[in-house]
Amino acid sequence: MKHFQKIKTPVLLLSESICRQNIKRMSEKTVRNKVKFRPHFKTHGSAEIGNWFREAGVDAITVSSIAMARFFSVNNWNDITVAFPVNIREIEDINDLLKRIRLNLLVENQEATKCLGKMLTGRTGIFLKVDSGYHRSGIDPENNKLIEEIFDLIDKFDHLEFMGFLTHAGHTYKSRCKEEVLRIHEETIRIMGSLKNKYQERYRKLILSVGDTPSCSIAEDFSGVDEIRPGNFVFYDLMQLHIGSCGYSDIAVAMACPVVSKHGVRNEIVIYGGAVHFSKEHLISQDGITFYGLIAEPMKGGWSHPIEGVWLSSLSQEHGIIKSQNRRFFDQVRVGDFVLVLPVHSCLTANLMKKFMLMDGRIIG
Amino acid sequence: MKHFQKIKTPVLLLSESICRQNIKRMSEKTVRNKVKFRPHFKTHGSAEIGNWFREAGVDAITVSSIAMARFFSVNNWNDITVAFPVNIREIEDINDLLKRIRLNLLVENQEATKCLGKMLTGRTGIFLKVDSGYHRSGIDPENNKLIEEIFDLIDKFDHLEFMGFLTHAGHTYKSRCKEEVLRIHEETIRIMGSLKNKYQERYRKLILSVGDTPSCSIAEDFSGVDEIRPGNFVFYDLMQLHIGSCGYSDIAVAMACPVVSKHGVRNEIVIYGGAVHFSKEHLISQDGITFYGLIAEPMKGGWSHPIEGVWLSSLSQEHGIIKSQNRRFFDQVRVGDFVLVLPVHSCLTANLMKKFMLMDGRIIG
Repeated sequence: MKHFQKIKTPVLLLSESICRQNIKRMSEKTVRNKVKFRPHFKTHGSAEIGNWFREAGVDAITVSSIAMARFFSVNNWNDITVAFPVNIREIEDINDLLKRIRLNLLVENQEATKCLGKMLTGRTGIFLKVDSGYHRSGIDPENNKLIEEIFDLIDKFDHLEFMGFLTHAGHTYKSRCKEEVLRIHEETIRIMGSLKNKYQERYRKLILSVGDTPSCSIAEDFSGVDEIRPGNFVFYDLMQLHIGSCGYSDIAVAMACPVVSKHGVRNEIVIYGGAVHFSKEHLISQDGITFYGLIAEPMKGGWSHPIEGVWLSSLSQEHGIIKSQNRRFFDQVRVGDFVLVLPVHSCLTANLMKKFMLMDGRIIG
Repeated sequence: MKHFQKIKTPVLLLSESICRQNIKRMSEKTVRNKVKFRPHFKTHGSAEIGNWFREAGVDAITVSSIAMARFFSVNNWNDITVAFPVNIREIEDINDLLKRIRLNLLVENQEATKCLGKMLTGRTGIFLKVDSGYHRSGIDPENNKLIEEIFDLIDKFDHLEFMGFLTHAGHTYKSRCKEEVLRIHEETIRIMGSLKNKYQERYRKLILSVGDTPSCSIAEDFSGVDEIRPGNFVFYDLMQLHIGSCGYSDIAVAMACPVVSKHGVRNEIVIYGGAVHFSKEHLISQDGITFYGLIAEPMKGGWSHPIEGVWLSSLSQEHGIIKSQNRRFFDQVRVGDFVLVLPVHSCLTANLMKKFMLMDGRIIG
């Protein structure tokens, strides 16, 4: 495509049509399942892509930091959950946001809950973060004592409104098949459901919020769940493909990287595109090969599935090395061309690149 | 320190005194060895830290991209080598720079050399990038045919001025002892020296430029070398410490990260500080433990050596998990505190953080 000729340095290409399709598919699933759709916006971090969600009927979102909440509040999002254990060093900024929007925060200990009670100056939704098996953060769902101590603290302060239980089953990211994801999803729903049963007399309106991309992409049954918060599905990537969350045709982003050198002795192509563009997230293939991306060919309106026998094999700060066992591809690539690389982890790549080039050449931030 | 109380979100702390000491030590080494000091500025990317180099007598620098060359040219640096195989898609931007500064570019193939000859509009220094054993990029030093073909191309164009041979012995980064670094350094100097011998009749003024931080930190003998280009030494980090390039007291940066949760059952502390702050670079300890950083304690004017039995054990996008086998440390840390983390790879961390907080609380970019 003609405007691709404008690419001078590494550029993150975004297929608006695939992206909108991903949004539509997930949105329809929430309608079928009668759950609220509160997508996580950390993957794209973009006001414009946010508008694509709004056009699909979304009115409430999830973010992972107060800074991101501030950014989207300025872009007219006024119902935001910050899905991160609340950082009480940011109380001032939180109070500032409370003046303007409906905000939900996550607690998982008494210290932070008490601090929110004493220091917040506006009505705030509070979720209890539950550890449903990922063991990164959250309260052990069996720890009734701690849960109830936090409830007692919440109830002491009129401006803290208990919303419900929230979990992120991030252990699905270690799955390598759909069955494993479904097993985790079912266990998550069971754990969350039993919390709801136990406490819904105390809080009649409490909701259950879940939301990793693998579970939300693969599962069809969300019985008992009130809200989902997937984020990565907006772009997907090779990691999600490995898990089984998507197919190649669902990956909405690809990095365009200039070719700066070729080394025939090693069948290697040197690209301008390194850790400062991709991040250093990698996958390991079934043959035990570590790779940082796969290579696709430009096609009308987008790109092909990955080319056989070609992979991004290493990254330093600005350099990437592509290994090619594919003679045709190697011979055809020239110094001064660009190649397309499907990223391993689109969230980190998008965070580094900040901007996207659409298929019509338009740049969005 | 009082101004540390202002820390709300992850902040990259910089000890100006350690940093200036690192600059001074390397600068003195170049004086002793009578080699030109052309430090790589990609590690810090900061105009202010650039000035600290200027105060130490530096007048020529290395960068890794045209964008970085533009940034430093605006900050009054007018002798810049872009140590990256030239990306011919950026010819226009290069021509723009040539109007204002003295620029050196790297070539390693005929295609790019020919393109520079035809398209550049100003006098340009050209280095031949040599592969001295790292096998990332560069010309095989035994490939006389290719070297001479490129020379012939350079000589065809009056505005291309051959400067000499340049290499980056990045394979020192895989070393885990000083002896191995020294062995690579000696081999690099041997390879480069024999190229100089072979071609100095054709180019009487040709220079040899080398410059990885491990070699430049550990080696004392730079006979035959004309210029060194280390970058990371300005901050150092845990990776350099593992290689043997520095001691803990030479590490000039530490991340300050708010504590958001503690999980006694797992001896884990959850911090606000993840892959978007640190990058995902890791090291493996002698006991086989993967870690993304080590934890230090704040001290007057800086921080302590790492605390025994405590390490940053995993990173997701915004979360970091600290494992503590140290009961005293675990008990003493409270939700709402911040902890200090020595980073594995300061170049990537600084690239993500963009700004630094000095020990007196001042923020520099």
